[in-house]
Amino acid sequence: MNPTETDTSLFKRLRFVLVETSRAGNVGSVARAMKTMGFSDLVLVAPRCADPLQDPEAVAFASGAIDVLSGARIVGSIAEALDGCNFAAAVSARLREFSPPVWSPRELSSHAAGQADLHAAVILGNERFGLPNGIVEGCNVLINIPANPEYSSLNLSQAAQVLAYECRLAAIGENRTQTGVGFQGEAASLAQIEGMYAHLEEALVAIGFLNADNPKKLMPRLKRLFARTQLETEEVNILRGIARHMLGQRRG
Amino acid sequence: MNPTETDTSLFKRLRFVLVETSRAGNVGSVARAMKTMGFSDLVLVAPRCADPLQDPEAVAFASGAIDVLSGARIVGSIAEALDGCNFAAAVSARLREFSPPVWSPRELSSHAAGQADLHAAVILGNERFGLPNGIVEGCNVLINIPANPEYSSLNLSQAAQVLAYECRLAAIGENRTQTGVGFQGEAASLAQIEGMYAHLEEALVAIGFLNADNPKKLMPRLKRLFARTQLETEEVNILRGIARHMLGQRRG
Repeated sequence: MNPTETDTSLFKRLRFVLVETSRAGNVGSVARAMKTMGFSDLVLVAPRCADPLQDPEAVAFASGAIDVLSGARIVGSIAEALDGCNFAAAVSARLREFSPPVWSPRELSSHAAGQADLHAAVILGNERFGLPNGIVEGCNVLINIPANPEYSSLNLSQAAQVLAYECRLAAIGENRTQTGVGFQGEAASLAQIEGMYAHLEEALVAIGFLNADNPKKLMPRLKRLFARTQLETEEVNILRGIARHMLGQRRG
Repeated sequence: MNPTETDTSLFKRLRFVLVETSRAGNVGSVARAMKTMGFSDLVLVAPRCADPLQDPEAVAFASGAIDVLSGARIVGSIAEALDGCNFAAAVSARLREFSPPVWSPRELSSHAAGQADLHAAVILGNERFGLPNGIVEGCNVLINIPANPEYSSLNLSQAAQVLAYECRLAAIGENRTQTGVGFQGEAASLAQIEGMYAHLEEALVAIGFLNADNPKKLMPRLKRLFARTQLETEEVNILRGIARHMLGQRRG
């Protein structure tokens, strides 16, 4: 892999996704944080403020990043926001029982900079209640910004600034640390992975391992396991092949 | 030097100095940025806003860091602000002709964390015109946050956040690649994993997905997938449960 190519392109491969943001000013501040670090792809999922791209407070806080603010896209669901991405990173100060693996900002940035085919989304939740469990559980990793245990609540745009800063350092090669993950094949898209999970779940019910009426935590546990691996397309196909044969077995 | 001693004490050895800040909201945001990273020593030099420690916008932006905000000291000169410090770092996006040596945030943080007798001040200027040359020239170093050359103007509190973040990482000795991942389960032993592979292979033959006479690369591919995850004992048990039900299906 040509490092220069990778370096320049991370700025095009990283998306910031804000979920249900309440304050328009924070949207503007995030736009500014992104632009100062060279990023521009901003998507808002169901914002809780009216007209966040034109709001005077948003415009004021965006300052010289009006282009990033006005170029932001507003969508209704996290699935739409992740369209085109094959890696999703939830930012949260709160650790959960069925969490994807927890990475530091620096681990995220070095991973993202090192994988030229990675299209990553950094997902930040509402100012007050953060991200819903459903979104976090669907992510590949949970990003935990090291913070004061007595007060770990960074302002939304300040969390975005820290992440954008780390990603810039990695993108310009000031932060090269090897992730050491042997990654050879094409990364599976989130849609492919979701499809595989649905298929697998159906098969696990069919063989009597998963009780559809009392699923317990089986699927979240399996998702957590696979989320750690960054699945390749070929691997998703193998897992679907197994699911298909499990189902065929029952029918046959 | 005892690293633990040094680590804990950097939180007491680092001061943030804001010079001629115009917006009270930024003072509050800086207080929050500092507290989230474990710092509390804030000094304002000749602020250009009335009553910045009580201003409603300052209080709102400080959020859970009211103690840092209300504990800030207001002084009339940079000399007073630096009382008790033996190292001064001016933060500026603008390089100057007669500049002290230019350091990155990370260079500052590792220097400060490594010197137990260093009492350092990080000095940030006005939102519009930055720091006067006279102050910059009197500093030991100039801190330049790596930024987009086309738009390098971080909001004051976001610059403070980046610096506080780097200093926290250095203070807690976090230059490691591994995260804590505290709530992960017990790592499976190699014997457990090998047993699971044998069980899974048998099951895959049983459901007709794996042809024992012509296995191709199926098991090596699955092993490569799982090897990336560092499986936990509980996960190995789940995978064996799936294999058992795949076999049960055939026999039943």
